[in-house]
Amino acid sequence: MNKIEVCLSPKLFDNYTLENKIVVIVDVLRATTIITTMFQNGLYKLIPVKTLDEAKELKEKGFLVAAERNGKKVDFADFDNSPYTFTPEKIGGKTLVYSTTNGTNTINLAKKAKSVILASFLNITEVSNYLSHEQKDVLILCSGWQGDFCTEDSIFAGALSEKLLQNNFISNSDSVNSSIELWNLAKKDLSEYIKTMYQYKRLMTLGMEKIIGYCFKIDVAEVIPVLKGDYIIDLKKIPQF
Amino acid sequence: MNKIEVCLSPKLFDNYTLENKIVVIVDVLRATTIITTMFQNGLYKLIPVKTLDEAKELKEKGFLVAAERNGKKVDFADFDNSPYTFTPEKIGGKTLVYSTTNGTNTINLAKKAKSVILASFLNITEVSNYLSHEQKDVLILCSGWQGDFCTEDSIFAGALSEKLLQNNFISNSDSVNSSIELWNLAKKDLSEYIKTMYQYKRLMTLGMEKIIGYCFKIDVAEVIPVLKGDYIIDLKKIPQF
Repeated sequence: MNKIEVCLSPKLFDNYTLENKIVVIVDVLRATTIITTMFQNGLYKLIPVKTLDEAKELKEKGFLVAAERNGKKVDFADFDNSPYTFTPEKIGGKTLVYSTTNGTNTINLAKKAKSVILASFLNITEVSNYLSHEQKDVLILCSGWQGDFCTEDSIFAGALSEKLLQNNFISNSDSVNSSIELWNLAKKDLSEYIKTMYQYKRLMTLGMEKIIGYCFKIDVAEVIPVLKGDYIIDLKKIPQF
Repeated sequence: MNKIEVCLSPKLFDNYTLENKIVVIVDVLRATTIITTMFQNGLYKLIPVKTLDEAKELKEKGFLVAAERNGKKVDFADFDNSPYTFTPEKIGGKTLVYSTTNGTNTINLAKKAKSVILASFLNITEVSNYLSHEQKDVLILCSGWQGDFCTEDSIFAGALSEKLLQNNFISNSDSVNSSIELWNLAKKDLSEYIKTMYQYKRLMTLGMEKIIGYCFKIDVAEVIPVLKGDYIIDLKKIPQF
């Protein structure tokens, strides 16, 4: 039986050991949702970078760049952080540099782990099936918001934990239990529950209602973004998968 | 209108500003429950210390010492960490040195704030009434377990937040909302809910069933332990209160 853990904020990540675990990064609003979308739309490779300086340097070397800070596109970027921007026509077969307020920091933090995948509601069942097949312990790492707890990542962690517990995983953790409790409340009427979240209110003031709804769509993607060294690729396109 | 925030682990404390706020420390299992009990039983002054070396040094200077690590009394201590040990006969009017695995670390961390009180289910209404009277912003600091989230402190934070929201406080925070959600689930049958907690299972293996139940008793104390410099005293015994 393999174990599930949920880390509710990147600042709590060093509470966890990493040996023989698969780390599952989630940032529902929006990094991992966007990244899932990118690969679903045929992206070949993603280079997550922490700072805008790194992003700008790679832009000058000829890479396509998507970058936002506090929900707004930075001036030199080719793309903002809307999932609707990353169409197959624009990114199919391409390599893209990506930097966001929250999500890419978490990705860089998770590089300590040997095995790291990225998840969102869009690919939750695909991710759950993969984890059930791998038979390793799972640590779900919530990106949170500005280093703190956020509801949307926690309910995702609850939803994924619930699926894994139905597939021979076990848990003895308060953060897993509480995430499942919150997910059970949320799933009764997800579109209403979203409205209670801090990020909903913040993103609504930026006019992002449609994008928020998109980020809670369940099972519309079949890709599994995986971190390989400094890059992210689609696990299913790796020959040995 | 004053604001409520909930910090779910000491490791998240630096996400919060402290100006003009009252920090409310909670460690349901068991530091703040024990401290509430001590003052309820007439303790004059408590000296929380982080390390066992400090505790031992003060013991050698003639102080009474209560100290535990991982739920077990350390050898040189006069008291273990059971609330039943601190009887009025033994501690009434006395000064006591106190060191625990989790709780006293949180107390030392909170010393950065100007105004710090200690709360537990035992004195929750007393604390809520005091905070409602003070008209300052409130930051509830959960001690958690080994630097991570724990359910018992979160549901306490939810219970206290619920009371404050009925008294003109406001909140726009995911950790407040989620704590209230968990408290609403827990309060339906608190004695059953306790059994889902990691700490319940851990403390049961140490034979502490009776003590666990004690820690969730609501409104059996009228004291408000407050941090004044390096000491904790009962706020109600300060002349200007």
